[in-house]
Amino acid sequence: MVSELASRVLKGDHQALGRAISLVEDGGEEGRRLIRDLYPRTGKAFTVGITGPTGTGKSTLVDKIIEEYRRRGKSVGVLAIDPSSPYSGGALLGDRIRMMDHSLEREVFIRSMASRGDVGGLARAARNTIRLLDAAGMDVVIVETVGAGQTEVQVATAVDATVVVLMPQLGDEVQAFKAGFNEIADMFVVNKADIVNPAKTMFNVASGVQEKDGWRPPVLKTVALKGTGVAALVDALEKFGKFLDEHGLREERMRRRLEAELVEAAFSDFYNETVDRLKRDRQWHQLLGQVSKKELDPETAAGKLVKIIARLDASSNA
Amino acid sequence: MVSELASRVLKGDHQALGRAISLVEDGGEEGRRLIRDLYPRTGKAFTVGITGPTGTGKSTLVDKIIEEYRRRGKSVGVLAIDPSSPYSGGALLGDRIRMMDHSLEREVFIRSMASRGDVGGLARAARNTIRLLDAAGMDVVIVETVGAGQTEVQVATAVDATVVVLMPQLGDEVQAFKAGFNEIADMFVVNKADIVNPAKTMFNVASGVQEKDGWRPPVLKTVALKGTGVAALVDALEKFGKFLDEHGLREERMRRRLEAELVEAAFSDFYNETVDRLKRDRQWHQLLGQVSKKELDPETAAGKLVKIIARLDASSNA
Repeated sequence: MVSELASRVLKGDHQALGRAISLVEDGGEEGRRLIRDLYPRTGKAFTVGITGPTGTGKSTLVDKIIEEYRRRGKSVGVLAIDPSSPYSGGALLGDRIRMMDHSLEREVFIRSMASRGDVGGLARAARNTIRLLDAAGMDVVIVETVGAGQTEVQVATAVDATVVVLMPQLGDEVQAFKAGFNEIADMFVVNKADIVNPAKTMFNVASGVQEKDGWRPPVLKTVALKGTGVAALVDALEKFGKFLDEHGLREERMRRRLEAELVEAAFSDFYNETVDRLKRDRQWHQLLGQVSKKELDPETAAGKLVKIIARLDASSNA
Repeated sequence: MVSELASRVLKGDHQALGRAISLVEDGGEEGRRLIRDLYPRTGKAFTVGITGPTGTGKSTLVDKIIEEYRRRGKSVGVLAIDPSSPYSGGALLGDRIRMMDHSLEREVFIRSMASRGDVGGLARAARNTIRLLDAAGMDVVIVETVGAGQTEVQVATAVDATVVVLMPQLGDEVQAFKAGFNEIADMFVVNKADIVNPAKTMFNVASGVQEKDGWRPPVLKTVALKGTGVAALVDALEKFGKFLDEHGLREERMRRRLEAELVEAAFSDFYNETVDRLKRDRQWHQLLGQVSKKELDPETAAGKLVKIIARLDASSNA
């Protein structure tokens, strides 16, 4: 059944794609089997991450980027990650609905994904969703995150090109952001460039930009609402894509991302398995009792627990 | 040297306390030894977490809570956690400076702590800082977090009583937040109750409140800037403290928190140790190569990596 679904995904069937993403989001065995089937057929899409602080107009910008890619004859898959925190507000429903216009076309597929509070789980589901959109034949896959935490950074960098969207007058915040953004940005966009002269913000950002793998991240300006600067942004993305291919960097970066992904996924699985077995471990309950009674301090106990974890683990593999 | 520092902390020496917190923040061996020395002398302070969305006036409220506790003859230690994300903006410097007025007093100690991007590390340092403030003889220890992510929730619940601060007209957001907040709140405060009638917000919050361990979280209103409602809030905190003691819940909850803390700390240490050894493991590099060449999919590879992790681990304990 799953392999029939896989073959429908490969044909670009939107309904099958929707179901496949749900399976991958569930994180169960069926989703894993789908990825096993489809992974060899991935790697053709150019994947783009769009991130940045709240309120910089990322959704509108993604809208216009889709239009521009469509004009160039490219099919586009979009994964929009809603804020992961229960504290940080609701999804940008208005924007999401507006984006649905594109969903009516055959060559555009848009999907939202919300976190269920599980940091690792969302990043894993997002990475596998990018693979599904890729396998379904999308030329370009865009992942939009509202820059907020660890997950968003993980997702925003699980792509070929990471675009950080800022706006003029973020002022001191831009300074504070720069360090973190510089590590992940392949290019910067100063959006809403019409509300105030963006020159100062662009200068500030540009002066802090760091060259990575021989590529100096450009700083572009856009007015997404009017579509201004969007063609130039897509030009820059295509130029960057060529740069990656010409320098053999696409594979090199993909390998680095895979390394981080596998380590995260394996430790997450390891954690879940071990925590379950820990619940039935007498030595662990004794240890906890000692700390509760203040016979042992938490730091020493954590050290002892590491050894219990190792023992549990060794015995399971004996 | 550390044990001299420990004895100075026990005497409530503010300078020693500042140094001790820095050691604990560094996460090194000296900090661990301090906690080992001081842990048996903790458990007397009543610990309070103050959290909620940005802009609800938490810092001002903490200010007034300190004043109220001082009026009642209690010493107060405060740990203010700055936003952990490089994206979410700077520290509330104005508020922090205002709070420093209290620092001049002998019976109040205030410390800010910022994240260095390491989720587990901040929560661990925060828990140990609470222990230091407790060991230094503070009657009340307040931890203020700007509710944003996993770390903030971890910290906001590493206490006896968790207060969630909202404000009127958060509207739909309150609805969205409620689920997450309900899990952690022992009481709600609707602050800035003078800017608009808080009745609707209070009703919305109250109607979603869940009883926990036989305690129904009250919904209070305050105008922190004017001090209105702060005495009633401190009354409610003292009432909740008595409730915990009378029902043996303080120890029970402390034990549950310790359990979560030890598991987190041990897995974090285990992760760091194992990742280091993984870098030198030939089988892991072969596995990564297979996935890069698409001979193996990431989900299957993650499963194999779990076994490599277990083997590395077993051999280190042989």
